[in-house]
Amino acid sequence: MPPEPEVPMPPEPEVPMPPETPRLGYVGLGLMGGPMARRLLAAGYPLAVWNRDPTKLAPLVAAGAAAAGSAAEVARASDIVFTCLTDTAAVEAVVFGADGIAAGARAGSVLVDFSSMRPDSAAAFAARLRAEAGMGWIDAPVSGGVPGATNGTLAVMAGGEPAEFDRVAPVVAHLAGRFTLMGPNGAGQTTKLINQLIVGCGIAVMAEACQLAEDAGIDPARIPQALAGGRADSPILQQFLPRMAARDDQVQSRIAIMVKDLATVMDEARRLGSALPLTGLATELHRLMARRGLADADNAEYVRLFDAG
Amino acid sequence: MPPEPEVPMPPEPEVPMPPETPRLGYVGLGLMGGPMARRLLAAGYPLAVWNRDPTKLAPLVAAGAAAAGSAAEVARASDIVFTCLTDTAAVEAVVFGADGIAAGARAGSVLVDFSSMRPDSAAAFAARLRAEAGMGWIDAPVSGGVPGATNGTLAVMAGGEPAEFDRVAPVVAHLAGRFTLMGPNGAGQTTKLINQLIVGCGIAVMAEACQLAEDAGIDPARIPQALAGGRADSPILQQFLPRMAARDDQVQSRIAIMVKDLATVMDEARRLGSALPLTGLATELHRLMARRGLADADNAEYVRLFDAG
Repeated sequence: MPPEPEVPMPPEPEVPMPPETPRLGYVGLGLMGGPMARRLLAAGYPLAVWNRDPTKLAPLVAAGAAAAGSAAEVARASDIVFTCLTDTAAVEAVVFGADGIAAGARAGSVLVDFSSMRPDSAAAFAARLRAEAGMGWIDAPVSGGVPGATNGTLAVMAGGEPAEFDRVAPVVAHLAGRFTLMGPNGAGQTTKLINQLIVGCGIAVMAEACQLAEDAGIDPARIPQALAGGRADSPILQQFLPRMAARDDQVQSRIAIMVKDLATVMDEARRLGSALPLTGLATELHRLMARRGLADADNAEYVRLFDAG
Repeated sequence: MPPEPEVPMPPEPEVPMPPETPRLGYVGLGLMGGPMARRLLAAGYPLAVWNRDPTKLAPLVAAGAAAAGSAAEVARASDIVFTCLTDTAAVEAVVFGADGIAAGARAGSVLVDFSSMRPDSAAAFAARLRAEAGMGWIDAPVSGGVPGATNGTLAVMAGGEPAEFDRVAPVVAHLAGRFTLMGPNGAGQTTKLINQLIVGCGIAVMAEACQLAEDAGIDPARIPQALAGGRADSPILQQFLPRMAARDDQVQSRIAIMVKDLATVMDEARRLGSALPLTGLATELHRLMARRGLADADNAEYVRLFDAG
């Protein structure tokens, strides 16, 4: 990639994209973003990359990516820019901060943000980027974890303009088994919150099932097999009940993250006026377990709520 | 079937069962029992039947069953007797009442009770039948509804002696896709309660997800597709969320039955000392909807809890 001027450039006029090979950019090459960027390179796309921690760049450059000096540089070189960042504050800094994506945005290009954040923040960021730089925004939080990112089987829940969704969909197809447009900007984030509501409550319910089985003298680890294929079946039953029964303490996803996600669900419910009795109770009980020293424990250890003290 | 004496007979000495074709009996030929009995006939077993309402007998006799004059007569003619009845009181009457199964029980035969009831009642009935008549008992509540009974794909959760479970399993295989021994008598009923706990809480959680989506301007009917195959996926998501979104009022399973099942879960939790915060809340909210006039409405209409008044 040629050196770029350091000063932010005004939005360029829209350049028609070669439809078969858009130039791609990726910002945020962490546990999720790294494998996703690798898949885009493997699919043959030209890819510019930037990461706050530059040590993450080398393996991708070795795999054929062009290292940029800033997020703005990535944006200047790309028709579609992907981001996958920790939280709302990180997205705001990378997009609207100094040398951020907005500073290099090409009018008519599209940002696809895989980060999870509040729906209203996503909608506000999208409107601002469109107004300031003429760049489109698809909020596209993901489900499926590192295995999904590595294998290209993520479920991606999208919000944004249908025309922009359609433009990025052929590229996202290399990353996701499922890419669903749910509504305008923010709708992808809301759908992710609903996903977290279902999972967080499901874990809390499964822990109650585990306790009742144990108190009745039944091995909870046999229940998934007995209920497989029936109405009560689910990945949470199959994955969590045996781990809860074993008091498995291997950390796959932390209770602190669930507390954060459920708190965001409850914030959104307050904003909209929704009443969520079971979700509210599950949120407080997860918070209780975090407070009792299990913030960094795995979600399955929520079942310790019911252990004798 | 030859006429039988009306007076209860003492338990007969154990007669070795022809291992390939045990003589079967079925008592309780309702919505579930009827199609199950038909499957046993279709599989070639000799089958004696009795039902409190005799009009249910004719179609089974036409299909090759022998009509008995009482539950006791069925027991006298059978190596394995199946029952599928409404509740604990019906089972007690049919087994221990006048001309009941205990009155005709052959020592060494086994009763397989597909009814749902309290685990402690099932264990007490099993002990009494064993002591009074030398007849074994497998508590075997089912999941899968009329389609499962018709197609032989029920999930059957069993409690009882392993040797008796093994004797009846080849016959139950004609009725069930899954027949799992969970522990001693009562363990099948407890597993069914855990199934109902998961389903009842799942419906309550899905209604909250439906409300949040609607309040955010997202069509809830699109969510099952977006989350399919992910951690939040489940039959309850796929079956209930679209019906909730449509305020579908077709009755498949009634809220009153869910209230009864969840109340039994909470009774069992009190007996065992288990603490079930989410299940308790889901129980009370289902009870609230029954109280507000929806007792005979379908489970999916629980979502009306959140409708503007």
